[in-house]
Amino acid sequence: MPPLDVPALVDHHCHSVLTADLPDDALAGLLTESDRPPAPGTSPFDSALGLAVRRWCPPALGLPAHASAEDYLARRRKLGAREAARRLLAAAGLDTCLVDTGLATAAGRPLLPLGEFAEASGARVREVVRLEPLAEAVTDPPGQWARAAREALAAAAAGAVAVKSVVAYRAGLAVPAERPSPAAVTAAATAWQRAGGGRLTDPVLLHELLHGALEVCAELRLPLQLHTGFGDPDVTLHRADPSLLADFVRAAEPYAVPLVLLHGYPYHRQAAWLAQAFPLVYTDLGLTTSYVGPRAAAVLGEMLELAPFGKVLFSTDAYGLPELYLVGAAQFRHGLGTLLDGWRADGACTAADAERLARAVAADNARRLYAL
Amino acid sequence: MPPLDVPALVDHHCHSVLTADLPDDALAGLLTESDRPPAPGTSPFDSALGLAVRRWCPPALGLPAHASAEDYLARRRKLGAREAARRLLAAAGLDTCLVDTGLATAAGRPLLPLGEFAEASGARVREVVRLEPLAEAVTDPPGQWARAAREALAAAAAGAVAVKSVVAYRAGLAVPAERPSPAAVTAAATAWQRAGGGRLTDPVLLHELLHGALEVCAELRLPLQLHTGFGDPDVTLHRADPSLLADFVRAAEPYAVPLVLLHGYPYHRQAAWLAQAFPLVYTDLGLTTSYVGPRAAAVLGEMLELAPFGKVLFSTDAYGLPELYLVGAAQFRHGLGTLLDGWRADGACTAADAERLARAVAADNARRLYAL
Amino acid sequence: MPPLDVPALVDHHCHSVLTADLPDDALAGLLTESDRPPAPGTSPFDSALGLAVRRWCPPALGLPAHASAEDYLARRRKLGAREAARRLLAAAGLDTCLVDTGLATAAGRPLLPLGEFAEASGARVREVVRLEPLAEAVTDPPGQWARAAREALAAAAAGAVAVKSVVAYRAGLAVPAERPSPAAVTAAATAWQRAGGGRLTDPVLLHELLHGALEVCAELRLPLQLHTGFGDPDVTLHRADPSLLADFVRAAEPYAVPLVLLHGYPYHRQAAWLAQAFPLVYTDLGLTTSYVGPRAAAVLGEMLELAPFGKVLFSTDAYGLPELYLVGAAQFRHGLGTLLDGWRADGACTAADAERLARAVAADNARRLYAL
Repeated sequence: MPPLDVPALVDHHCHSVLTADLPDDALAGLLTESDRPPAPGTSPFDSALGLAVRRWCPPALGLPAHASAEDYLARRRKLGAREAARRLLAAAGLDTCLVDTGLATAAGRPLLPLGEFAEASGARVREVVRLEPLAEAVTDPPGQWARAAREALAAAAAGAVAVKSVVAYRAGLAVPAERPSPAAVTAAATAWQRAGGGRLTDPVLLHELLHGALEVCAELRLPLQLHTGFGDPDVTLHRADPSLLADFVRAAEPYAVPLVLLHGYPYHRQAAWLAQAFPLVYTDLGLTTSYVGPRAAAVLGEMLELAPFGKVLFSTDAYGLPELYLVGAAQFRHGLGTLLDGWRADGACTAADAERLARAVAADNARRLYAL
Repeated sequence: MPPLDVPALVDHHCHSVLTADLPDDALAGLLTESDRPPAPGTSPFDSALGLAVRRWCPPALGLPAHASAEDYLARRRKLGAREAARRLLAAAGLDTCLVDTGLATAAGRPLLPLGEFAEASGARVREVVRLEPLAEAVTDPPGQWARAAREALAAAAAGAVAVKSVVAYRAGLAVPAERPSPAAVTAAATAWQRAGGGRLTDPVLLHELLHGALEVCAELRLPLQLHTGFGDPDVTLHRADPSLLADFVRAAEPYAVPLVLLHGYPYHRQAAWLAQAFPLVYTDLGLTTSYVGPRAAAVLGEMLELAPFGKVLFSTDAYGLPELYLVGAAQFRHGLGTLLDGWRADGACTAADAERLARAVAADNARRLYAL
Repeated sequence: MPPLDVPALVDHHCHSVLTADLPDDALAGLLTESDRPPAPGTSPFDSALGLAVRRWCPPALGLPAHASAEDYLARRRKLGAREAARRLLAAAGLDTCLVDTGLATAAGRPLLPLGEFAEASGARVREVVRLEPLAEAVTDPPGQWARAAREALAAAAAGAVAVKSVVAYRAGLAVPAERPSPAAVTAAATAWQRAGGGRLTDPVLLHELLHGALEVCAELRLPLQLHTGFGDPDVTLHRADPSLLADFVRAAEPYAVPLVLLHGYPYHRQAAWLAQAFPLVYTDLGLTTSYVGPRAAAVLGEMLELAPFGKVLFSTDAYGLPELYLVGAAQFRHGLGTLLDGWRADGACTAADAERLARAVAADNARRLYAL
């Protein structure tokens, strides 16, 4: 059975990269969702993601696969972070990256601006704007805050390919179908501004922003991406179950705005059902495919149980560490290839079916959805 | 290793079939849980279920497995829907079908009456009556509505083998252990009738119906089937988690009425635990085995982790499309065979163990439970 | 590929054993989480756990693997329960057992005292004290009850290696971050004592106990084990989802008390995420590895997707039946071996990586966490 031919990848959700030299512990700190120091006697390299990094990255820096973390880090230091980043990004083979610009730093260092990221990665780069930070910068009076936030979003999204919300982190995904009343929004905005503004966690304001984002996305014909499932310790996992979005999904249907459920794990089967039941819902596994290391094929299999093949997207959700772009791409190619080889060996599909599915998820679905 | 010998199947939960000619899009519309048009650029055939249809059905119509959707549909049109249905149903090899008669149409066309379905399928056919539609037809005054609904159920169920509830769709599965008070039921029935009756969604009335169904089922010695898990866009997935039924399960124990949890996915592990913990609880995967296509063995494996082998039932949950009966049967035979071959190869069980398990799930458990 | 070398096991969570002769139905009753008689026509031996018992235990009693339940039980009777227990425990090869002494009986018979369990099993034995029964024995006046319960715990835990809570069974895992007020605790203790004391189910008292246990564990430098996931019919499954613990986990961070999430299934992926996100959280699969029989490798794989390899612990959670210690150990060795052989065959890790991971989970992590 010849290996699956997975073409150039469209990474529909990632962040920019660091090319600065990093101390080893700062680098390891980007290999876990935790923002705390590791427990005594443990290292982020001793994890499924750590195995994946040691599998795919050493060859890009001239070492054998599975080199030890120590050898790998020594080699990386010797090459220099900028050269290592160049090699790792080149090996990832990403054709196009849709970059969430809502995070400006990683490990306390500035991420590359989009133009430099494009140059460093060799990929076409387009922007995804993040909803909540834009709204946090809006200082209009409470009674005009919601409208001003929509205008700020419309302005920021004019050249972007999508809007992204992290409401899962802030108030969970149980977003009501009914939009908050203007009076409730004004009251909440008043309280928020009196408390000094800053990070938005008030559910009324967050829900108003999402409903407002439907208006803006409908006008600009942009999809709305939503973080779902696991993330850093700031998320409360069960409140990020995409099934909780059902009422909001139904409310979004009249706007005809595609809703893209990012990551989803460990609720990716729930996300897949939403993608089957609701034409506007799309889904991906994002950083899951990297994080689960040797288990990528199994998790991809779970996603493809109910998700229509035309509604699943590839992303790395890579952030900061150049290793994560290569790992995300390699894990996806290898995991999907393993899964589909198994399907073919079982007689479940033909080689042509497998290649069509792989091309759809790798690039074609994203090109259609984001009009690339 | 010789292939697993799975005997004739008792399908303990399905619906009747359409034998009318259907436009291609109406046919495709029966290959998804969505009742909406597919998203641009997607087709229900591009899914795990679509692969399963193209694997198992073309040979029944004289085409090679994995024929394209286009070729398959053309061949089906040429044969005519009635002849295609005859061939597909015959290839399914169903010995007995327990048919939920709560849905009368599919794709806007009438399903075959039970007698004609028996003739077309070659299977023994028994009826499962659906609780909620029966109650919606009861027009007695509010104070007598609950009793009249029980009497209507008892009359309808007299010749049936089970009662089925779709409360998961209407109010979710968090059914309280405590029965609503007569006063609350009368008040809710009054409000419902004043609003013109029709589709029942009031939790008080739905919960009263379930508690009343326990009385009727105890009297008639019938199991009560409950939809759990995924379904069409009308369901809110997390409210259909069978774990939410725990209080109702405990309340049902004094009635000694078996509760059969249908489908369950993606909460089938929760359903399996209930089946292990509570003697009255039985479980199946229903349409899941069809919908997940190449992943059927994996999902069956998950169900069999905690579910006692004597408490798992086979069903197709096929509805309307004759393809779905064949796919349901073939997916189950192949998926369970693959799973158990793996167990034997691993040394986890003997060939005799595997065949006993397969016979139990395929038919013996259903024969014992429904006294067939 | 040479088989994985899994060294001596540290079982960080189990109960003591019965060595009395048992009627067949009492023995079978210890092979299920149900405390009810089995459903008509079913037997606990017809389950994934039953297959595992018939796989691993007959050879320890001189019968071939997969002997029938009848032959096995006859052989067991002939040898006598004490001799069977001796052989089964010896075959388990447990190096060290951390024994939860919160349950004194199984099948209505007394479990061996710790000294005799150590002798019978050949293992080093250390005690884990259970929080709730200790507090139920405290009869101090309501205003002093909480303090007295802490003192009772401190006294009981002085020679122990951990404290364990079963709050999942009593009030669920949604433990608030905020400790109950002294006034609320006094009021709840008053009501509880007036009702005659006994089994604690009042959430205020249970939550006070947990917050108090953090103080005691911090003082004694002991981890706090928490039951999560499936168990007997007394648990309401979705309330035992470890994700519900997130607020309590955050509240526990200042105490620096490790929280060990036991079992977790079917929410073990949620537990694994907590272990990755929070340095203090550890996790195991416990009795899951036994109960899921042929599926142990798959479930272990799911746990290792997100859980850092240094945060996963082995346990049998064996209780009463000597078979369960052997099955727990054998299932873990075989399941993990199968999983890691697959990883190596796929090129996901080296043999040295696999052995390091296996040693960590089998013993090293527990030795470090419990300072053994």
